[in-house]
Amino acid sequence: MRAAIFRQGKFLVDTIPDPVLADGQVLVRTRACGICGTDLHAAKFPRQYAELSRRSGGRFTMRDDVGIVFGHEFVGEIVSLGPGTSGRFPPGTLVTSMPVTLAGTKAEGIGYNAEVPGAFAEYIPLAERLLLEVPPSMHPDHGALVEPMAVGEHAAEFARLTGEEVPLVIGCGPVGLAVIAALKLRGLHPIIAADFSPARRKLAQRLGADMVIDPATASPYEALAQTITPAGFDGSRYAQLTGGAGKRRPAVLFECVGVPGVMQGMFDGAPAGARIVIVGVCMETDSFEPFFGILKQLDVQFVLGYTPEEFARTLDNIASGRIDVAPLITGRVGLEGVQAAFVDLANPELHAKILVEPGR
Amino acid sequence: MRAAIFRQGKFLVDTIPDPVLADGQVLVRTRACGICGTDLHAAKFPRQYAELSRRSGGRFTMRDDVGIVFGHEFVGEIVSLGPGTSGRFPPGTLVTSMPVTLAGTKAEGIGYNAEVPGAFAEYIPLAERLLLEVPPSMHPDHGALVEPMAVGEHAAEFARLTGEEVPLVIGCGPVGLAVIAALKLRGLHPIIAADFSPARRKLAQRLGADMVIDPATASPYEALAQTITPAGFDGSRYAQLTGGAGKRRPAVLFECVGVPGVMQGMFDGAPAGARIVIVGVCMETDSFEPFFGILKQLDVQFVLGYTPEEFARTLDNIASGRIDVAPLITGRVGLEGVQAAFVDLANPELHAKILVEPGR
Repeated sequence: MRAAIFRQGKFLVDTIPDPVLADGQVLVRTRACGICGTDLHAAKFPRQYAELSRRSGGRFTMRDDVGIVFGHEFVGEIVSLGPGTSGRFPPGTLVTSMPVTLAGTKAEGIGYNAEVPGAFAEYIPLAERLLLEVPPSMHPDHGALVEPMAVGEHAAEFARLTGEEVPLVIGCGPVGLAVIAALKLRGLHPIIAADFSPARRKLAQRLGADMVIDPATASPYEALAQTITPAGFDGSRYAQLTGGAGKRRPAVLFECVGVPGVMQGMFDGAPAGARIVIVGVCMETDSFEPFFGILKQLDVQFVLGYTPEEFARTLDNIASGRIDVAPLITGRVGLEGVQAAFVDLANPELHAKILVEPGR
Repeated sequence: MRAAIFRQGKFLVDTIPDPVLADGQVLVRTRACGICGTDLHAAKFPRQYAELSRRSGGRFTMRDDVGIVFGHEFVGEIVSLGPGTSGRFPPGTLVTSMPVTLAGTKAEGIGYNAEVPGAFAEYIPLAERLLLEVPPSMHPDHGALVEPMAVGEHAAEFARLTGEEVPLVIGCGPVGLAVIAALKLRGLHPIIAADFSPARRKLAQRLGADMVIDPATASPYEALAQTITPAGFDGSRYAQLTGGAGKRRPAVLFECVGVPGVMQGMFDGAPAGARIVIVGVCMETDSFEPFFGILKQLDVQFVLGYTPEEFARTLDNIASGRIDVAPLITGRVGLEGVQAAFVDLANPELHAKILVEPGR
């Protein structure tokens, strides 16, 4: 089969062996696969990512010494059933799954794995047990958006929301947009979102942000502070002792950028008592001043991925129209276009999510 | 009155004006006042601390351009009642309070405040309304330990414990010891504690640690992992999907050191899903790799101080004997001894808490 193989810093389309199905697997023809921010990072810093993977205790499997087929946000059509399958979905069924496959009792990640090709390839060997059907009511391509949108669902779950919070989403790339969609579903208002890009701010509004801010012209933290603070609030250190405190709405901030320095900005800007959920995946060393986290008694919750339940719920939310992912898809390329797409994605005015279509 | 004044990097004993009582204040003769780790830091890095205070939005008030009287862990005896007091405690009553005083409706911190002398002085002007009586059943000096022990009570409250957790306390200075005491009161077992100092490890055991570890010879994180992990546990990335997970006890780690680098060590060593409570006050810039927090979905809760309720509860715990603070007191000095005590406290084999006795 044909695949876009990442080797020595770039993508080349070549032929690799078709997957050989293991026990419980089905062969799926890839219809579309999104390009993720982590893909961009892994392609830009393959050595660092491989080193982090090595130190991750087997929880990530990126290597930089062999060719790798990326691609973990996929939708496709079953073409054949392997040994030991039940046939619960017949060939022709449109499916997606979490980016994991099972070979007997062994699990393998899909996307940064030298052992198993990802979905920038014509075919992927998926575990029948993990498949979810993409229903006919849903645009087939939107199956590729389940994975990135599930990241937002997971972040919102980990935020331990009570419903009283005012959320601020820093960064409106696909991760931030997924968080905004999950917050909207939970009925939180106003949702404040910040991004330097006008196109991204428009997308944030379409996904559910009530207030969008360009950090180049106004402070998102100031907007958050104004929103949560009632008239006459006394924020001084001993306000409770002098009887002048009043009550602010709780604040929850979502870091959806994933580059060094953002966390320190949030420590500086967050109101006292805020919860910060780190959804962006920063793969570099970061530095910050704990003192301001301490003074404000901040809580920082790091999150990753999603549970199978969150993944399935996200598919339902998209299928039912509760989340409209159509505006996120800003480009489509065949396998030969992967290299250029990785460059184009650097421009937030042009792109949010580019789908790779191996059959194109 | 006589006071140890910190000016230009050192302590000098001099005479300063007696406090003039404002509305609602009583004059208290200082019996004893502990030296705190934050005092040590402020004395070592006065410029940095003053700069952090300036940036804290009025929540801290340290200055390095004028003389300051430190001292915020105090116990003393009421000598006179100021205007507008109710006389709820007559002169002669032994009292402590949170390190705040009220002058009418204005609150002032005690300890790093150019406007109000701290308790390394003969007298302090306290707010009658905030006073707590140190009961006759309690050793009078132990009133000076309420403040540092309340820090542990507060940290344990913020840890949102369910009772299932295995706690690991990193650092067994006064902060770590206070955390251990608070964990013991909550019935958590085993309490694991780590410190390089044999003397500190002995104190940790006296305060309630079930297992103490010298990080020079064994990994506290390894001990924690062994304690929470049942036989046959499968910690691999997709264990849940292959049905082989098993259940670990939840882990909660307390950072009680407050120097750069410890947090990264905890990110490296903590088990997946752990909560980390940052109790040590690090005043320098720290650096760490968010990737490992992300992979493990860690939660980092920064805490500071205590509430009035936690402070009062800590006094009760000491008075009733539920917490025995006697072993913590390792030295006593008069005002002239303050400078030397700040040097001596650098040796954890010799000292945990030194009390300053201005009447000595």
